[in-house]
Amino acid sequence: MSSVFPSPLADPMPQSPVLRAAYRARAAAAELAPLPRSAKDEALLAIADALEVRTREILDANAEDVAKARAAGTSESVVDRLTLTPERIRAIAQDVRDVAALPDPVGEVVRGSTLPNGIDLRQVRVPLGVVGIIYEARPNVTVDAAALCLKSGNAVLLRGSSSAYASNTALVRVLRDAVGGAGLPADAVQLVPGESRESVRELMRARGMVDVLIPRGGASLIRTVVEESIVPVIETGTGNCHVYVDAEADLDMAVEILINSKASRVSVCNAAETLLVHQDIAERFLPRALAALAEAGVTVHGDERVVELASAADTGAKVVAATTEDWETEYLSYDIAAAVVEDLDAAVRHIRLWTSGHTEAIVTTSQAAARRFTQLVDSTTVAVNASTRFTDGGQFGFGAEIGISTQKLHARGPMGLPELTSTKYIVTGDGHIRGR
Amino acid sequence: MSSVFPSPLADPMPQSPVLRAAYRARAAAAELAPLPRSAKDEALLAIADALEVRTREILDANAEDVAKARAAGTSESVVDRLTLTPERIRAIAQDVRDVAALPDPVGEVVRGSTLPNGIDLRQVRVPLGVVGIIYEARPNVTVDAAALCLKSGNAVLLRGSSSAYASNTALVRVLRDAVGGAGLPADAVQLVPGESRESVRELMRARGMVDVLIPRGGASLIRTVVEESIVPVIETGTGNCHVYVDAEADLDMAVEILINSKASRVSVCNAAETLLVHQDIAERFLPRALAALAEAGVTVHGDERVVELASAADTGAKVVAATTEDWETEYLSYDIAAAVVEDLDAAVRHIRLWTSGHTEAIVTTSQAAARRFTQLVDSTTVAVNASTRFTDGGQFGFGAEIGISTQKLHARGPMGLPELTSTKYIVTGDGHIRGR
Repeated sequence: MSSVFPSPLADPMPQSPVLRAAYRARAAAAELAPLPRSAKDEALLAIADALEVRTREILDANAEDVAKARAAGTSESVVDRLTLTPERIRAIAQDVRDVAALPDPVGEVVRGSTLPNGIDLRQVRVPLGVVGIIYEARPNVTVDAAALCLKSGNAVLLRGSSSAYASNTALVRVLRDAVGGAGLPADAVQLVPGESRESVRELMRARGMVDVLIPRGGASLIRTVVEESIVPVIETGTGNCHVYVDAEADLDMAVEILINSKASRVSVCNAAETLLVHQDIAERFLPRALAALAEAGVTVHGDERVVELASAADTGAKVVAATTEDWETEYLSYDIAAAVVEDLDAAVRHIRLWTSGHTEAIVTTSQAAARRFTQLVDSTTVAVNASTRFTDGGQFGFGAEIGISTQKLHARGPMGLPELTSTKYIVTGDGHIRGR
Repeated sequence: MSSVFPSPLADPMPQSPVLRAAYRARAAAAELAPLPRSAKDEALLAIADALEVRTREILDANAEDVAKARAAGTSESVVDRLTLTPERIRAIAQDVRDVAALPDPVGEVVRGSTLPNGIDLRQVRVPLGVVGIIYEARPNVTVDAAALCLKSGNAVLLRGSSSAYASNTALVRVLRDAVGGAGLPADAVQLVPGESRESVRELMRARGMVDVLIPRGGASLIRTVVEESIVPVIETGTGNCHVYVDAEADLDMAVEILINSKASRVSVCNAAETLLVHQDIAERFLPRALAALAEAGVTVHGDERVVELASAADTGAKVVAATTEDWETEYLSYDIAAAVVEDLDAAVRHIRLWTSGHTEAIVTTSQAAARRFTQLVDSTTVAVNASTRFTDGGQFGFGAEIGISTQKLHARGPMGLPELTSTKYIVTGDGHIRGR
């Protein structure tokens, strides 16, 4: 429903299979929007049951994808993310049940008042409408995204990677059967037809049919969607996260937070990629930090001062000289950039210059430093004396997340169910007209 | 601060004047973000005073624009919108004082809790950063937009139309002097240099420097920005608004609401453009409606049934046969499309098919009809027994508005100060690390 474009619904049924899917999704979305929570939860529980009952069918399809990936020489870590097992399917089904147990955001009155002229004004949450998700390898996203969209009253168009096409096709078949069986429109969940890049391009042009696109995956996918889509996009996921250790800091705590932030799981967007250390504490802290990083198997890309301190102390750390590029790199590996900074403000300047705006942590015992850092750093999440790894919908208590937005518009940080909604105003009068 | 693009701030100062302005705006935004309300209000009051003190200088510049517009044969209504007078400048200054009196959205804790592990989680409002406004003729928008952006802690890049370039240049000079004089960075308010289309294009490519673009003006401007910008956009303003008169309705009320919605001010986005009438009441209501519309000077573009009823009753109305195009036209003139529909659901289908998603009103005495209409219609505002003209930040009690969003992402409907903000999460622990 877009204002400056001709109504896409007024056209006869479009020729392209992608646009036909979007057309049907829009009709399904209109049916979903007014549904009460109970109807949506029933469909979600039916999905969870169906995933377990039809596990065999899903695993067979997944085996095809896995065989194809192996034949194509795909790395084992990617093959692992692609692979489904009975346990994984059970866990996915449980996640769907957990989504059913979450409160329904739709209908929530966000704001309401009686205006001076007696009109009652209410702003209420409504579904976004049609949500397009463009994602890479992991087939569990297919079910997660569908469950979150259904719960929030949205129809979903799923565009997974071609490497998971057989798995996604089987999963979506199971989902649609369950949704239809529960009396909801099956077209609320659709796999975008076609495995080609062209189908993504069509999705990106479907303004007025698709209300938002959420790309989840590597930087190049996200960049393409952000640059080319005329459908509104929520940018997700890239995380060049920083840990700053202030002049006054508990060094044991700083080491623990650093190692947890960097090395507890290196492939995720909330892992730390840069360490900044206040110059006054560098000599005391860096030898300990470098030893701990070495023990965790992390290579340090250090600035001049870090390299100097590393060679002075015998920490066993692997330290290489950093180049400018290191400051903006999201390694997603056992690597970290490290620099000594003059003071807190210099740390903030470094962060503002290089961050992807995801999560930055400060370790400090100073209340003034904590306050200044949280005021000046402008990222989705600022952590004080806590690991960067906490930026996560589950950790934040949202129950589930559809992604982590790194943009400022609409949603920022972990996105739960409310972030999959918009609002509308309801104005109730008894014959009110406007004076001017 | 964008995640998948290289940091624009890491480049040396860009060559293009537009990007240099954006670069300086970003630096100013970093200074504005942590400012307390008092500092921002002081700057706003300084602006209001300066506008009054320097009225002469502003009027002289405006006279240039007006002379140029007249010489170019611009219509008098456009010239009128371009023209400033001492009274208008006083009114603009008063609007700025009103903005100063509004609460500051920045720092508001939107959500907060202590997580099961003891971490304190707070989601707080922060400025968006750099807001770009692309707008047409009216120079008062220059001051309004700057005041709202400053109050919400944002730097603003103003790109007015070339027809108001002298006026905007003078106004921005006054604004910058006042802002600088109050101790805030003058670069928080900048006119985008250059009068060419190219400067708009550069603004639309400045992702990572500009956080949001808000186009305000005609459909073609908005369409261009939506289609071409890689900076996130908030689509504003187009209004193909509907008034639906239900089978059970107070006909006096229905006529009043229809005439107020259509004819109290035809050039605005919340004016009604289509009348839908339930078939059961058409014979009783339409003759009265047509007579009232005729009296208000409104031409009716009717469907077959409307044309038929108009010729049966002698209402004096000017009625022409509607074409498909009429259903999607935002006339912004003394014209209205009109159709008779089978029932409420048919009205909803018509609206969903043709609306721009701005505002739709129902006139009914039936609680069930009001409830169904508000549930099924998906527009920024649904009015029950009230004029469409109420969709307005001032009318809603927001104090001011930067525009009316007709998109679903980020903001929907009239946008006040909170809609010029984003949020960030602050995670406070005492050494918390994540288990998995």
